[in-house]
Amino acid sequence: MEVWNRYVATRRHVEGAPTEADFEVIENTARWSPDSGEVLVKNLFLSIDPYQLNRMKVTSASHHAVDGILPGQRIAAYTAGEVVASASPEYAAGDVVVGVLGWEEYSLFDPSSPAAAATVHKVSTGGGGGFPLSHHLSVLGTSGMTAYGGLFEVSKPAKGEKVFVSAASGSVGSLAGQFAKLAGCYVVGCAGTQAKVDLLKDKLGFDDAFNYKEEPDLKSALKSLTEHFGRYFPDGIDIYFENVGGEMLEAALANMNTYGRVALSGVISEYTGAGRRAVPDLLEVIYKRITIRGFFAWDFLPKFPEFGAVIGEWIREGKVHVLEDVSDGIDSVPAAFAALFSGHNVGKKLVKLA
Amino acid sequence: MEVWNRYVATRRHVEGAPTEADFEVIENTARWSPDSGEVLVKNLFLSIDPYQLNRMKVTSASHHAVDGILPGQRIAAYTAGEVVASASPEYAAGDVVVGVLGWEEYSLFDPSSPAAAATVHKVSTGGGGGFPLSHHLSVLGTSGMTAYGGLFEVSKPAKGEKVFVSAASGSVGSLAGQFAKLAGCYVVGCAGTQAKVDLLKDKLGFDDAFNYKEEPDLKSALKSLTEHFGRYFPDGIDIYFENVGGEMLEAALANMNTYGRVALSGVISEYTGAGRRAVPDLLEVIYKRITIRGFFAWDFLPKFPEFGAVIGEWIREGKVHVLEDVSDGIDSVPAAFAALFSGHNVGKKLVKLA
Repeated sequence: MEVWNRYVATRRHVEGAPTEADFEVIENTARWSPDSGEVLVKNLFLSIDPYQLNRMKVTSASHHAVDGILPGQRIAAYTAGEVVASASPEYAAGDVVVGVLGWEEYSLFDPSSPAAAATVHKVSTGGGGGFPLSHHLSVLGTSGMTAYGGLFEVSKPAKGEKVFVSAASGSVGSLAGQFAKLAGCYVVGCAGTQAKVDLLKDKLGFDDAFNYKEEPDLKSALKSLTEHFGRYFPDGIDIYFENVGGEMLEAALANMNTYGRVALSGVISEYTGAGRRAVPDLLEVIYKRITIRGFFAWDFLPKFPEFGAVIGEWIREGKVHVLEDVSDGIDSVPAAFAALFSGHNVGKKLVKLA
Repeated sequence: MEVWNRYVATRRHVEGAPTEADFEVIENTARWSPDSGEVLVKNLFLSIDPYQLNRMKVTSASHHAVDGILPGQRIAAYTAGEVVASASPEYAAGDVVVGVLGWEEYSLFDPSSPAAAATVHKVSTGGGGGFPLSHHLSVLGTSGMTAYGGLFEVSKPAKGEKVFVSAASGSVGSLAGQFAKLAGCYVVGCAGTQAKVDLLKDKLGFDDAFNYKEEPDLKSALKSLTEHFGRYFPDGIDIYFENVGGEMLEAALANMNTYGRVALSGVISEYTGAGRRAVPDLLEVIYKRITIRGFFAWDFLPKFPEFGAVIGEWIREGKVHVLEDVSDGIDSVPAAFAALFSGHNVGKKLVKLA
């Protein structure tokens, strides 16, 4: 069987903020044969995640953990889709699957390869306790696992602790904040628009939230942030769920309590500028005995079923609001991806196909 | 009873590298009376430690954990001395004590105060298994506890792991490196002179060592350091016992392995310059899932007896070399302290009195 496929590729390495012009949609054919052992999937949703930008650079520390992306290449990414043809006894046409496939309309995978075995699995959707398919890329996918693992495995919150979440209306932050509330913490988030701030307070149940762009003088951003923290955390910060980096980390460290913990999930403000970096005061880290720990969802892969069961129950009970921001069609991927870095998404960014 | 006392004080807040001119030796009298409940101690050794510089600044993150020092004030510091008069049933004249007293010839303390109860204790020295008194301020004091706790409690080395120690000929580094060897690790240290490098390799049993000042072009220090790491750690660094900060931390992070740990004991290169800071690449921390943890010896106070028993046994068996660098007389304190920041000490800096 041969199907026309379209996939998204970069035109060049991307070093700054990405624009639509950095990408192209390439047509090819996906060839599947009954003796290949392979499974052909029609993708229904594509996951659009900021970390992909690091893969697009010539050099990046991300290349230690995830392959870099070469211009013109298919881009591996989480997708959710439906099996249209299978040469594997494990899968049948009509099965719904989630896993690391690609930013493309059709994907082929070999269930016997270690990579596919580790990341691709069948899901049930719709009636009978199932969740909408998109949730398997957001709250029940790596975004949810990042938030859950970063909070409960890395930060280990005690009831009553004070939690700060940056990029709090984003895919991971919106969940980390809600999970922290469910753990009995006091939770404050920051975001970049008043609408997002309202969303955090009115819909997601954050105790408070602020707009970090309120202060127009960028030179005093750090001072302004420190004033925000003084106002919102009169008793200091115990846990910082970090998605942003830069001055935000510096200001948060300056306002942390003794034995504070920084769950370093992402530093999106540092992804787009080669030189942009946090310059932490390490004396804060030493004298307050702070722990800063980098992590990502795959560290918790063996615990996904356990995490997913808890999160699923919370969704059923209406305790967690799932924010998804969906664009249509493969041609919308470049704009959807670029929007992540200008703060135009709310919650998990997905692209729906066909 | 009244004794003439002399104590060291700062003349002003100290913000940069300290010089002898920043200090003065002040004479006063120490008054002890039999109904005061107090103990009068003649100090025999004073501990000279870099962290005191942070206490001398107008503002410093260290003030969260330790009181700042005002000009003209006595300076609290670890000392070892002999009781000359006691109004407490717990102490008698002739007892040898170690604890947080001060940079002074005579100290008074009240054994019923929580601070003294937590930090002052009697020690036995000389024959019968005792150690030289000075050891109670170095290898059996906070330097040893910092090295032991930072290695075994914070870094948790596995046999065969690769350990990098900066300021490796210093009071803490020289012990951390030797302890890491005893834990079965591969250990490389850096220091600032060829003599120190030789000492690390020839006497302390480090697997290797390098002089970080070898490269005269400071602008390429980071590149030079990275080359050093490439040469000395072809398989990467698992544990970084950090005493220095600045570019050293940046270069070490760039050469760390997945799940690497940074035991943040001190950042002496950042103590003397208000603006000098490490600018770590947080992508390294995230994608290699590195943990950076600040700590200090007092975090392990309840474990001091346990740590001390192990370390004491190692000394008796000749497995640990103790480096002490001793100056004479209270008037030598300012020069001894200033020398810490120009790299002129080897091992633990002490001042011997009388």
